[in-house]
Amino acid sequence: MTGRGEIHVFPVPGLPEVTEGFDLGGAVAANVDLQAGDVVAISQKVVSKSEGRLVRLATVEPGARASGLAERLGKDPRLVELILGESRSVIREDSDRGILITETVHGLVCANSGVDSSNLPETDAALLLPEDPDESARRIRRQIASSCGVRTAVIVSDSLGRAWRLGQAEVAIGCAGIAPLEDWRGRTDSSGRELSATVIATADQVAAAADLARNKTSRTPAVLIRGLAHRVTEGHGPGCASQLRPAAEDLFR
Amino acid sequence: MTGRGEIHVFPVPGLPEVTEGFDLGGAVAANVDLQAGDVVAISQKVVSKSEGRLVRLATVEPGARASGLAERLGKDPRLVELILGESRSVIREDSDRGILITETVHGLVCANSGVDSSNLPETDAALLLPEDPDESARRIRRQIASSCGVRTAVIVSDSLGRAWRLGQAEVAIGCAGIAPLEDWRGRTDSSGRELSATVIATADQVAAAADLARNKTSRTPAVLIRGLAHRVTEGHGPGCASQLRPAAEDLFR
Repeated sequence: MTGRGEIHVFPVPGLPEVTEGFDLGGAVAANVDLQAGDVVAISQKVVSKSEGRLVRLATVEPGARASGLAERLGKDPRLVELILGESRSVIREDSDRGILITETVHGLVCANSGVDSSNLPETDAALLLPEDPDESARRIRRQIASSCGVRTAVIVSDSLGRAWRLGQAEVAIGCAGIAPLEDWRGRTDSSGRELSATVIATADQVAAAADLARNKTSRTPAVLIRGLAHRVTEGHGPGCASQLRPAAEDLFR
Repeated sequence: MTGRGEIHVFPVPGLPEVTEGFDLGGAVAANVDLQAGDVVAISQKVVSKSEGRLVRLATVEPGARASGLAERLGKDPRLVELILGESRSVIREDSDRGILITETVHGLVCANSGVDSSNLPETDAALLLPEDPDESARRIRRQIASSCGVRTAVIVSDSLGRAWRLGQAEVAIGCAGIAPLEDWRGRTDSSGRELSATVIATADQVAAAADLARNKTSRTPAVLIRGLAHRVTEGHGPGCASQLRPAAEDLFR
């Protein structure tokens, strides 16, 4: 295992407002000088926009369950219908904050199935998560390789709330070219002692690092992380689906 | 709010094996050229060691509750006694993995009250978390200022497991000179639209970024993060205690 050293994190400049069909990987490759081993973290919002995941609320017909929940939560029933549609189950109802904590169709646990109805140019619309964030990451990775021939890793990130802790932190919801988890179990340190670090959520940590460089008041949805070339793999890898704790093993459902 | 830009993350070299009474802040200041606005992230282990939080298991007398739990978990009852002693409550018992998820005396929710019995030079010993990680951060911050006169922020970090997601990620358990949470609610972006980002767990994200630069097989417990000067405050700030979700408001107890 090679040592680690300096990490540079910087935003990719010059990305325009993203609409459906936009070549995100190509735009990143055009706006920054990518090096082999770079990791590109892209926020879920622009990925969803490029994939046409925008839904006009006027097209949504709320069912009985959504209407009932919406009343309890003080939310638009059409939004609740979308949230339910993007979920496998509702884990908690938080009427105080007007949110549903759900397990999404992907197996992610987060607020409101990641459905976002704020900060959109379109009024009365909502943005769903990508249908398959790992496939999104793979596609963008291929776009980058096609554009400039450089091997990178791509992370699709989103800001999620956490149990027990206030605030949201950026985590990886999709990835390609990097393993989301690093397994340090059984390894020894330089003195031969077994390391206590177990399985490290590397992709999540990269997503968090990327967010530190992001300027929230202007468009910097894509961020470059340089210095993790030893983590970038030839193959796409197992994706972020592999880091979700199976419901049967999860003590917090 | 000033924009964000490039972030540099690099390990502080040259720190020796830390023992009780060690001047961590002074050592960091001596081993790296600190600049105003630098953030220093230090892993909890060396902070605990410097504070004499090492306990010889031979000195621990397990009570009845600890003995009973230890049998179910397949753990050393003296270790369980320490875990219980460092906790306010047991939230979950995971006999499969032999861990107790507890709320620590600080209000942190984590495995085994953060008590660590691996990777120690001393056999048959365990390392407790710092008694007050925010005070630890303040102390180290003062040590740095005394040594070199530079204003920094200090984060005491630890690798914690998460609900719903596999693996552990580094988070901030103590901090000084940086607010753990950034409140973006109600702010607008460059087009005047209200931002959807709510409260960002900045200190946790910094801890995660720091861990990416850390070399786990050799001694790099302290990591410098440069580029966040706009986040470093004159005062110590509210500390990480302010980012713990109060039990009464937490849906996952």
